[in-house]
Amino acid sequence: MDSSLQTDELTDLRARVRCLEDEAEIYRLICSWGLAADIGDGAAAGSLWTDDGVLQAEDSEVAGREAVSAMIDSDGQQDLVRQGCAHVQGYPVVKVDGDQATATNYSQVYLHSDTGYGIWRVTANHWQFRRTPQGWRVKRRTAHVIDGGPEAQRLLASRFTGPDPA
Amino acid sequence: MDSSLQTDELTDLRARVRCLEDEAEIYRLICSWGLAADIGDGAAAGSLWTDDGVLQAEDSEVAGREAVSAMIDSDGQQDLVRQGCAHVQGYPVVKVDGDQATATNYSQVYLHSDTGYGIWRVTANHWQFRRTPQGWRVKRRTAHVIDGGPEAQRLLASRFTGPDPA
Amino acid sequence: MDSSLQTDELTDLRARVRCLEDEAEIYRLICSWGLAADIGDGAAAGSLWTDDGVLQAEDSEVAGREAVSAMIDSDGQQDLVRQGCAHVQGYPVVKVDGDQATATNYSQVYLHSDTGYGIWRVTANHWQFRRTPQGWRVKRRTAHVIDGGPEAQRLLASRFTGPDPA
Repeated sequence: MDSSLQTDELTDLRARVRCLEDEAEIYRLICSWGLAADIGDGAAAGSLWTDDGVLQAEDSEVAGREAVSAMIDSDGQQDLVRQGCAHVQGYPVVKVDGDQATATNYSQVYLHSDTGYGIWRVTANHWQFRRTPQGWRVKRRTAHVIDGGPEAQRLLASRFTGPDPA
Repeated sequence: MDSSLQTDELTDLRARVRCLEDEAEIYRLICSWGLAADIGDGAAAGSLWTDDGVLQAEDSEVAGREAVSAMIDSDGQQDLVRQGCAHVQGYPVVKVDGDQATATNYSQVYLHSDTGYGIWRVTANHWQFRRTPQGWRVKRRTAHVIDGGPEAQRLLASRFTGPDPA
Repeated sequence: MDSSLQTDELTDLRARVRCLEDEAEIYRLICSWGLAADIGDGAAAGSLWTDDGVLQAEDSEVAGREAVSAMIDSDGQQDLVRQGCAHVQGYPVVKVDGDQATATNYSQVYLHSDTGYGIWRVTANHWQFRRTPQGWRVKRRTAHVIDGGPEAQRLLASRFTGPDPA
């Protein structure tokens, strides 16, 4: 093989390895969101978001990293943490497109009580990510509980209908 | 390093990167099955299967992509979708062997109702895949609910007993 | 590109591909633990551990591969297997550092009964791994049910506080 062919091969391999690394980092990011929520650490949770990141769920919207942190630090969330909660993220279908990426997954929230564990929410999620100088960050998470309605189904369908269902 | 050594290295790296990409694609395929089922989209579901793909569960067997699509489009499945269902796929142990691959995983089906979420099925799965010109497709999924019986245990044991428990 | 530059590139790519392979192997290892537990195969379960591996959960500690195998083969665990259990491992955040690695994840144990499926445990896990000549093995798993107490939260926080919370 001559040297210019090897250079082409190296360029191709570098791009493919980077794509695999991007996907792995986005897996970590999604899982980390659940971990941050369950320890009630607003700063850790916010650090996963872009400055202008948006967290949308049913009829609520939280805009900006500071607001995401504040939501996790709020009394309501801290009550869940003291009760014992597990925001378990299902493994996602990730699509990377340069410095943008999307993912579709399920998540479940389990709550502890004196009588054992209950399932509080089963949720459809569509995520948007942006590559920043500090690594991948969440730009938007749109979440809706699975209740037979069209909102959750639209989010799940994003896997098949393109990179962005919005 | 001389040029022929570099060529050997490149060949080795290409094979390893391809294997990682194959695993990532199979992860997406398994997760996508749940997503297609929960939006009740027979065409999307069928597109994940080979023409001759087989879906076997307990004492039922659905053979062929068209039949898989029809099963998802059936009244029974559409009733589940209208009720609100989540076919959550656990992350799998994947083994790639050239243009064939297998995977072992768990899945759970959560159902929505007026009183919250219930767990309808917890299932052991053994998957077989084939690389096609259009990408990896499901050749066979063998599923059995976990009920203490030998069928589900045999599927879970496939992780340890080789690439194909059949 | 001259040959020495290509050599540098190859060295870099090799390291990155190896890291991705390490992560994939650790994913398989964690998932396999659940599979081995649910088929009640002590030998298979033990084979995932280092000779001196430790399994710690709440106020119990099992030390050494032989003891891990014996625990899985014990009457209590075999009763769970006959009842029908699913030790479902959530997908982890893995950090590889040379021949050592750690992971943080959730796991749930579902139990079958005549009236359906119940959630027995929802658990926070911190894993330590060691690369051995036979591949990656579990060196320590520290597990605690999520109950609102600090033990589980400390394990989940390991994702943010460094490679080893101990």
